[in-house]
Amino acid sequence: MKKLINKTDDVLRESLLGFEAAHSDLVTVNLAPRFVARRQRKDPGKPVLISGGGAGHEPLHAGFVGHGMLDAACPGEVFTSPTPDQMMATAGAVDGGGGVLFIVKNYAGDLMNFEMAAEMIDGAETIVTNDDVAVEDSTYTQGRRGVAGTVIVEKIVGAASEAGADLASCKKLGERVNATTGSMGVALTSGTVPAAGRPTFDIGESEMEMGVGIHGEPGRRRVALASADEIAAEMVGAIAEAKALKSGEPCLLLLNGMGGTPLLELYLMFHAAKRECEARGLRIERSLVGNYCTSLDMAGCSITLTRLDDELVRLWDAPVHTAALRWGN
Amino acid sequence: MKKLINKTDDVLRESLLGFEAAHSDLVTVNLAPRFVARRQRKDPGKPVLISGGGAGHEPLHAGFVGHGMLDAACPGEVFTSPTPDQMMATAGAVDGGGGVLFIVKNYAGDLMNFEMAAEMIDGAETIVTNDDVAVEDSTYTQGRRGVAGTVIVEKIVGAASEAGADLASCKKLGERVNATTGSMGVALTSGTVPAAGRPTFDIGESEMEMGVGIHGEPGRRRVALASADEIAAEMVGAIAEAKALKSGEPCLLLLNGMGGTPLLELYLMFHAAKRECEARGLRIERSLVGNYCTSLDMAGCSITLTRLDDELVRLWDAPVHTAALRWGN
Repeated sequence: MKKLINKTDDVLRESLLGFEAAHSDLVTVNLAPRFVARRQRKDPGKPVLISGGGAGHEPLHAGFVGHGMLDAACPGEVFTSPTPDQMMATAGAVDGGGGVLFIVKNYAGDLMNFEMAAEMIDGAETIVTNDDVAVEDSTYTQGRRGVAGTVIVEKIVGAASEAGADLASCKKLGERVNATTGSMGVALTSGTVPAAGRPTFDIGESEMEMGVGIHGEPGRRRVALASADEIAAEMVGAIAEAKALKSGEPCLLLLNGMGGTPLLELYLMFHAAKRECEARGLRIERSLVGNYCTSLDMAGCSITLTRLDDELVRLWDAPVHTAALRWGN
Repeated sequence: MKKLINKTDDVLRESLLGFEAAHSDLVTVNLAPRFVARRQRKDPGKPVLISGGGAGHEPLHAGFVGHGMLDAACPGEVFTSPTPDQMMATAGAVDGGGGVLFIVKNYAGDLMNFEMAAEMIDGAETIVTNDDVAVEDSTYTQGRRGVAGTVIVEKIVGAASEAGADLASCKKLGERVNATTGSMGVALTSGTVPAAGRPTFDIGESEMEMGVGIHGEPGRRRVALASADEIAAEMVGAIAEAKALKSGEPCLLLLNGMGGTPLLELYLMFHAAKRECEARGLRIERSLVGNYCTSLDMAGCSITLTRLDDELVRLWDAPVHTAALRWGN
């Protein structure tokens, strides 16, 4: 294992301290229990949006804490769910009386713990994201996995809550965005969990895992590495089919890096994906390219498409000021 | 070679088209000759800042084209200098009469071609960056290499030119920032040039190249992989010595990823580097963490320190709106 770390047990703590030091204008980090919260707290009465999950997917979720997006994030150890205690402490620290909305990627451990925490907090609600169209049921999931589409849910619901939407409206909106969002990923290499010390899965020198999960879960098939255009065509096709995207529909296209693939390739894949979308008549009205929902040092990418309407465009365009996403004022 | 590409000959063209499509609000891309320019041109009379060099270091330089930073960038093929013709066409497209300032990383090919172009353009000036303190003379360089400190030069000079500084002042400022900036890098793996099809250099499973260049040029020594703290101590020490940084001095700390290392590790390295700086009495008053000057899919990072003063802080803080760096309005 080749990593820029000290002791494997200290990876998350030291990384969070670095994150806090680099973004001290935006966030504060609490180490015990572990959570990242906005430095400037929200207006009382605003529902608070909290996400979390295992570390190793950075900038997800701590990189999205700030104005216009999350109020807090609670990271577990690498690829390990945070605990209900941790989630309750996070909610207690940031809730100003407007209620708590958890945004949870669909993994059994995350779901169980967030639901346990939600039951203990009066009126708390949960949005479960399950945008990965590659497979039904997986190593850690019943149903579909929650992957990079979670970023889009967090951005859009964050904008709504900032604009005054109440808890019930935010939950309904988040579920609507999730339902109209589909993703699919591909891995060229496996990431390595620091505590494991070796790659999560073995993969041949000329193979790719099509439909991979963000913890290295198996996808649809292990096949010979294909061209960028072929990969884009298969992934866009799978998403368009699963989400019944039709010619003429306006979409948001997120080309997400898995952590180990450089920007030179991500922009090339974006070009391939956008052309494939346009060949299907989809209108790419908004887009985002970069590393947003990663899998440690995995080489690969995912494509996410969200069907847009005027409301979603307006909320997507609303100002956001976080470590990993920033536009508007 | 595992890359998300089509044909190796098309990598740069397709990546630039993806970049343009993703950032069409900010830039336009010209393919023949190849350059990236601001969509909204500067005021007539503003000196234009143009940088360039081989591709493979993204987001350098195209990702820094926009308000408050570069006016244009001209990318060569991967790790290959752009041509004088290309540079002259770029200058011709963006110069509004305020003169042309080339910002050039110190590599023999880049230097020769940019100087040739500058000689052909009336009044054009050149700033050469050479912030890499690791070695004197290298595979492609006489003297010290220009690396991630170039980003800081581009940001600060960009702010000055936006605020009305003339060409001579911009050049003088850039040379001052370069002189007070030092960098050093470390590689855990080699990047792979698409057209070469294999890693630039071989490195053992438990080795690192300390002081590596951004094209995989040899550094100071090939040694066993050390801890993040040890790596940070050696790199910060080397920079502090080369730049005579003294206890109590205010600095900017850039922790730059080489392309294949995930954010989890970059923030951890930032934590290590910042502590090492503080142990030496340096005051880290500004900072930046992320992939800004990369080497394809190389795993590793570099540390850059710039000695600050009130003028440099003000210019660093000035608004910037580019694909890769954005703050202020």
